[in-house]
Amino acid sequence: MRYQIITVGSELTLGLSVDTNAAFISKTLGKHGFTCVRHVSVPDKIDLIAEAIRESLAQADGVIITGGLGPTIDDLTRDAISQALGRELEYQERLAQIIEERYGNRAIPLPEITYRQAYLPKGAEAIDPTIGSAPGIIISEDERFLFSLPGVPREMADMLEKNIVPWLETKFCSGVAHAVRVLRTTAKSEASLQESIEDLVRSLRNVDVGILAYPGEIQLQLLAKGANMDEAKAIVGSAETLLSERLGNIVYGYDDETLEEVIGKLLLKHALSLAVAESCTGGLVGKKLTDIAGSSEYFRGGIIAYNNDAKKSLLNVSSQTLVRHGAVSAATSLAMAFGVRDRFSADVGLAITCIAGPDGGTEEKPVGLVYIALSHQVTNYSNRFVFFGSRDTVRIKSANAALDMLRYYILDNFERAGGDAS
Amino acid sequence: MRYQIITVGSELTLGLSVDTNAAFISKTLGKHGFTCVRHVSVPDKIDLIAEAIRESLAQADGVIITGGLGPTIDDLTRDAISQALGRELEYQERLAQIIEERYGNRAIPLPEITYRQAYLPKGAEAIDPTIGSAPGIIISEDERFLFSLPGVPREMADMLEKNIVPWLETKFCSGVAHAVRVLRTTAKSEASLQESIEDLVRSLRNVDVGILAYPGEIQLQLLAKGANMDEAKAIVGSAETLLSERLGNIVYGYDDETLEEVIGKLLLKHALSLAVAESCTGGLVGKKLTDIAGSSEYFRGGIIAYNNDAKKSLLNVSSQTLVRHGAVSAATSLAMAFGVRDRFSADVGLAITCIAGPDGGTEEKPVGLVYIALSHQVTNYSNRFVFFGSRDTVRIKSANAALDMLRYYILDNFERAGGDAS
Repeated sequence: MRYQIITVGSELTLGLSVDTNAAFISKTLGKHGFTCVRHVSVPDKIDLIAEAIRESLAQADGVIITGGLGPTIDDLTRDAISQALGRELEYQERLAQIIEERYGNRAIPLPEITYRQAYLPKGAEAIDPTIGSAPGIIISEDERFLFSLPGVPREMADMLEKNIVPWLETKFCSGVAHAVRVLRTTAKSEASLQESIEDLVRSLRNVDVGILAYPGEIQLQLLAKGANMDEAKAIVGSAETLLSERLGNIVYGYDDETLEEVIGKLLLKHALSLAVAESCTGGLVGKKLTDIAGSSEYFRGGIIAYNNDAKKSLLNVSSQTLVRHGAVSAATSLAMAFGVRDRFSADVGLAITCIAGPDGGTEEKPVGLVYIALSHQVTNYSNRFVFFGSRDTVRIKSANAALDMLRYYILDNFERAGGDAS
Repeated sequence: MRYQIITVGSELTLGLSVDTNAAFISKTLGKHGFTCVRHVSVPDKIDLIAEAIRESLAQADGVIITGGLGPTIDDLTRDAISQALGRELEYQERLAQIIEERYGNRAIPLPEITYRQAYLPKGAEAIDPTIGSAPGIIISEDERFLFSLPGVPREMADMLEKNIVPWLETKFCSGVAHAVRVLRTTAKSEASLQESIEDLVRSLRNVDVGILAYPGEIQLQLLAKGANMDEAKAIVGSAETLLSERLGNIVYGYDDETLEEVIGKLLLKHALSLAVAESCTGGLVGKKLTDIAGSSEYFRGGIIAYNNDAKKSLLNVSSQTLVRHGAVSAATSLAMAFGVRDRFSADVGLAITCIAGPDGGTEEKPVGLVYIALSHQVTNYSNRFVFFGSRDTVRIKSANAALDMLRYYILDNFERAGGDAS
């Protein structure tokens, strides 16, 4: 089975919003062995939506549409489906009642336009809304399917999981299963990563390998095909083992695992607590660490020391250090790491000080210069980096480099015997 | 002129990456009056890329492709263009030299595969790389155009601005210009916003109005058409004035302006300094504030007090307050706001304490419960919110609500006479 996704919304084709729904659907259905062969985004124009629907149904076994199901005047997906398939819209009293209940429970007065959502193309099956107020739509025609889901990510995800996945699994037994595995690395560059695994990649059968670069991270994406899911998983599993062994510790995690998640597991495992002192990253490292539910088990807190006064009064960096070496220096970063560890009575202190730009750089200390320091027991060390890119990129790379420095420190000092980070 | 965008990459149709390039291109070219009518994403399969190219050229005046121009084996866009247009690939010695220089300057050894990037479809014009190593491609055929750009956002953006925009402006005088204006609000819901402006929206001519909800923010997107850019801008300008007057202070900014940017301008204008105390948001508010270059002018820093010890030792919250009222309470938030203001000698202290979930909620204090407090001179007040959604959503909504509380405080107390936030 091969399907396409159409995301509806002028905000998408105008570039005012980035489409995250298509990626979410592809990924979710991919896990169940269903392959998406195209994403299409079209504006809130009835003719363009209808044209895209007709094309998708001609090219693939089915189409999943998101967006344009709300109550407002620019919600046109119902009308476009009606036009594309020649099925009139019919008012459904039952849906009107469900919609009233959905709004009633929230104690918000009910605008007249809300009832637009109670219309469905003839012969369509409704998916009752449980989070928002817009019903979803299921149509099956000539061995092809059409699903229409709300554009709000939570509402879409809920219907996808509860209604679409079971529907597809009942209908299709694909005969080919796909398994995906992502190896997440802190490699220096795409090309260096590719070179170091080229011979292995050539030896792999039934596995596609892609290399993708993001700020502060490079991913190796493996896609395996098998006659069934067990076979596909076994194939991707052997490829993963081969590549992981070659790459060693630069692979920090797998699939959706983030660096902050891996750090959390390592800190928990070795009963280490952490505090962070941030200058240019302004709270980004703390934000990342606390993205993880349960991070209060190991994360004590942090100090955002955005100027010299705060570095002195809250982190005990001496005036002498600041004057002699400057705020962005190895000495200051070391004092910050020690200071924050002390302030929070944490086992490990991590500190970042950098020139994020766009201004403030000099020939000696350019924009992108970063010092990261770590303090633990009698160990205190600092690394120097120079990152290229925008203010945003420099900050993201700095935060990731700090977390990666901590990861290597724990691996080298607490896991030397075991040798495995995962 | 109507064009389409094709983004190439199996990571996109597999859902492993979200496509941001299409939105960026649409937005950039939209400002120059060029309308994108479709985004398409296809996997790294030569036939599917070629098919999408042929379709786009049949449906629109041109197509812009991103991705698949790199050196690795899964970079197939060059071959797909060659197949779709029946133009053979030719090796270009000049490009090979430029590519060598690009790598040479970086002092990285040059893998053989790099030279794949020196091949161009017959009759194509190269865009020399200035950031990465992949040349872009320009082909003009039968009054239709094809541009192929690298997938790395920075490389793509550079070529788009320096090569594609000038090319299109020379070639097309569209006769219709579009102007876009986004009103960014902190309205409570899409439906309430729509109801409050419905009559105005119906009275508008040549303006499309869209309402979009994001966590912590609702946007009103206006798209106006005119015979030229001046006319389009005038039309969108009057619509904006009408809507802004009706909506008042819930409109916090326009277009790309973020809440943290608006806060920054207000703090600067009134010479106010700020410090933040964050519990559940873990640094997110600090991160947002320091997203703004130059924020050191007004942002003193912050304390991430992720547990009670830090609230006591660093923010002077009393044990009595924590025991009697709990960490998530009005009393604790007020003590945190006062404490952080004091610690950093800032004019204003802002504090957030909440239960972000997924665990830790009780019947009395559910997940999503947030207290936000503000302290300035003799004023100390706290607001209570309950937000629905994931841990991530609760954190984003909390951060935005805190910034918005500060915005209203400054508007009410420093701008009452002027009355305008922008």
